[in-house]
Amino acid sequence: MIESTIAAIRPLDEPAMVAAGELHGRLTKPAGSLGALEELSVRLAGLAAACPPPLPEPAAVAIFAGDHGVHAQGVTPWPQEVTAQMINNFLAGGAVVNAFARQAGASVTVVDIGVATPLPPAPQAGAATPGGGANSAAPRLVSANVRRGTRDLAVTAALTRDEARAAVETGIRIARELIDAGAGILLTGDMGIGNTTPAAALVAVFTGVDPAEATGRGTGVDDPTYARKIGVVRAALARHAPDPADPLGVLAAVGGLEHAALAGLILGAAARRVPVLLDGLIAVSAALAAAAFAPDAVGAMVAGHRSAEPGATAALHHLGLDPLIDLGLRLGEGTGALLALPVVAGAVRVLHEVATFDSAGVAEK
Amino acid sequence: MIESTIAAIRPLDEPAMVAAGELHGRLTKPAGSLGALEELSVRLAGLAAACPPPLPEPAAVAIFAGDHGVHAQGVTPWPQEVTAQMINNFLAGGAVVNAFARQAGASVTVVDIGVATPLPPAPQAGAATPGGGANSAAPRLVSANVRRGTRDLAVTAALTRDEARAAVETGIRIARELIDAGAGILLTGDMGIGNTTPAAALVAVFTGVDPAEATGRGTGVDDPTYARKIGVVRAALARHAPDPADPLGVLAAVGGLEHAALAGLILGAAARRVPVLLDGLIAVSAALAAAAFAPDAVGAMVAGHRSAEPGATAALHHLGLDPLIDLGLRLGEGTGALLALPVVAGAVRVLHEVATFDSAGVAEK
Repeated sequence: MIESTIAAIRPLDEPAMVAAGELHGRLTKPAGSLGALEELSVRLAGLAAACPPPLPEPAAVAIFAGDHGVHAQGVTPWPQEVTAQMINNFLAGGAVVNAFARQAGASVTVVDIGVATPLPPAPQAGAATPGGGANSAAPRLVSANVRRGTRDLAVTAALTRDEARAAVETGIRIARELIDAGAGILLTGDMGIGNTTPAAALVAVFTGVDPAEATGRGTGVDDPTYARKIGVVRAALARHAPDPADPLGVLAAVGGLEHAALAGLILGAAARRVPVLLDGLIAVSAALAAAAFAPDAVGAMVAGHRSAEPGATAALHHLGLDPLIDLGLRLGEGTGALLALPVVAGAVRVLHEVATFDSAGVAEK
Repeated sequence: MIESTIAAIRPLDEPAMVAAGELHGRLTKPAGSLGALEELSVRLAGLAAACPPPLPEPAAVAIFAGDHGVHAQGVTPWPQEVTAQMINNFLAGGAVVNAFARQAGASVTVVDIGVATPLPPAPQAGAATPGGGANSAAPRLVSANVRRGTRDLAVTAALTRDEARAAVETGIRIARELIDAGAGILLTGDMGIGNTTPAAALVAVFTGVDPAEATGRGTGVDDPTYARKIGVVRAALARHAPDPADPLGVLAAVGGLEHAALAGLILGAAARRVPVLLDGLIAVSAALAAAAFAPDAVGAMVAGHRSAEPGATAALHHLGLDPLIDLGLRLGEGTGALLALPVVAGAVRVLHEVATFDSAGVAEK
C-alpha cells in the first residue's frame, strides 16, 4: 500500500502553475502585491493541475494520538494518562483544536494509533460542545491502535518495521477516507505526551542537524529535563544509527506511531493531489519522513506555522517550506494548521473571485 | 468632537487582564503554548474591561478613499483615475478585499473622503458579486468628500486644519455608526493612488526615522521614481517642519484625507473600547497620528500584518505592536487586516470555549 501510494505521487503540473501566474497578472491588484499568497496559490494550482485550483474546503483535521515508551526517561513533566484524557477532551469539544475547528468550519477526526491507556468503549462523541460554530458535526474517534505506546527508543527500537508500516498505512487510509468523504484539504493534528522527543530524533536523522539543535522544550521542561532530553535523542541516534534513506526504518527506530501515521496521511493526500496543511513540530518531523518516501510529496505540503520548537524550523528549512503563521505557538493538536487555513483559502479564493483589469474597467500603470 | 473622543479613551483595564491571564493558566493546554495569541487575548480583555472579552464579531471593514495632489510629482506609475475605478470594483465586489471579506463574513463600507473624480451617482452596490460567501450584504458607499483630492504636499500644505479636522471627524462618525450597528471589531481599509507618499511622510514625522527609511516602493515603482519619492518626502518635511506633537497639523501638512479619516476611525473605536485591526502602511501611518492624539488609543489597536513597505515596520516599532501576519503583502484595501481576523477571533474564542483542566478531567504536570 505504501509503495503504490508513493508511485501515484507526481510532480506539480507546470502548465497549471504558468496559467495561475498569468491570471495573477490580470487581476485588479498590483503585480506581486499579495506576496506569499501568490506563490502559494500558484503551487496549489500545480498540485491540482488546474487553474484556478479548487477551493480548499471542506477542511478535515486528523489528530493521530499515541504514547511513547521514552516517557520512562523523564523527558516530560506530564503524566502519560494525559494523552487519553485529552482525547476525551477532543471528543467532548473542549480543546483548543475544537475551538479553532469550529471557527474554521473544519471537521475533527481523532485516530487512536497508539494510545497506552485503553479508551472508554463509548467515547463522548456527540456530547454538547461549548460555543457551537460553523461546523456542528461532533468530533469522531477512529480506533486503529497498532500497539499501546511505542517501546522506549532509549533502550530499543520504538517499533518493529511491521508496526511502523501499519501506522503509515493507517495514515494513508485515513487520508483516502477523508478525501472520499469530500475533504478539499487535510490538516495534521497530533496528541501524545512525550512526542516531541521522537520528533526531535526524526528531525536530527533526516536533516542532519545536531540533536541539541533539533530538540526543544516541548510543552515546557526545565533545564535538567531539557539536557536529559537532548542526551536521550543523541544516545538514540548513536544506538540505532538510522539510515535517512530508509524512512520506514527511521520511523521504527526512533519515531512514534502518530509520526508514522502522519507521514502516511501526507503521502495519501499527495497521491490524491489534495493539499495537506502541516501543524507544528510533530507534523513537520513526519513530513520529513514522507519526503524521504517520496520527494514529490513536498508539493502537497503547506506549512501552517512555525512552531516555537527549534526542530520545526530545521525541518521546514530542509523541506524548503515557508510557514504562513509565526506566532510562537507550541501546542500541537492541529491548532497552528487551523489558524493558517483562512490564509490558504484566501490565496485560492483570489484566483476564483477577483475581477480582472479588463472586466472591472480599471486602468493599468 | 475630536477632543471629546480623545477624552473618552482610557487605559486597558488591569483586573480584566489579570483575570484573562489566570484563566489561560487553567485551560487544557500547556501554559503559554498559544504564544502571541495569549498576549493578544489578554490585551483584548483589558480593552473590553471584561474576561472573556466579547468575540470580535461581526467584523466591519471601512475603506477610506482619497486622491493626492502629490500625484503630480510622478511618485507612482498609476493614473489617478484608478482610485475611482477601484471604488467601483469594491462596490461590485470584484476586488481582493471583497473576496477576503466574503470569506471572513465581514461587511465592507467604502467612504469617499477625498476622491478627485466624481463618483457615479448610482454606485454599483448590489450588483452581482462573484463567488458569494458568508456575508452576502453588498458593499456600501458613504459620500463624505471633504475635497476632491489633497493639494500637492511638495508645494503647499496638503490640507487646511479644518479639512483635516473634518476628515478625522468623519472617521470618528463612521466608527460610531459601525459600532452602533453591532460591529464587534473594525478593520481599516484604504484606497488612494499615491497614498504611500503621504504615509511615508507621516511615518518620518511621527517616528523620527529618515525619509529614506520611511519610504518604500508602494505598488511597485522603478528606481528613478523611488528616488524621486524619497526626495519629495524629504523636501516636504523640510518645507513644512511639522510638529509631531500637533497631529492635526501634521495631517494637514503632509497627510491625506484617508489617513486623517483612519486616525479618526481608530480614535472612535478606542473611545468605545472596540478593537481596530490595522491593515498595512496607510493604516499604521494613521495609527501614529491617532496615538499622537491619544496615547491610550494604542490599546485598541491590533496590528494585522507587516506590510512589505519599510515605513510600516518603523511605525509598528514606534507603536510597540507586533503584527499577526507577515507574508509580504503590499496591497492595502484592508486585505492584510482581513487575513488576520481569524487569528484575533481564535485568540478570543479560546477564552470562551476551551475547557479547564478541572472541568475536562485532565491531569496537570
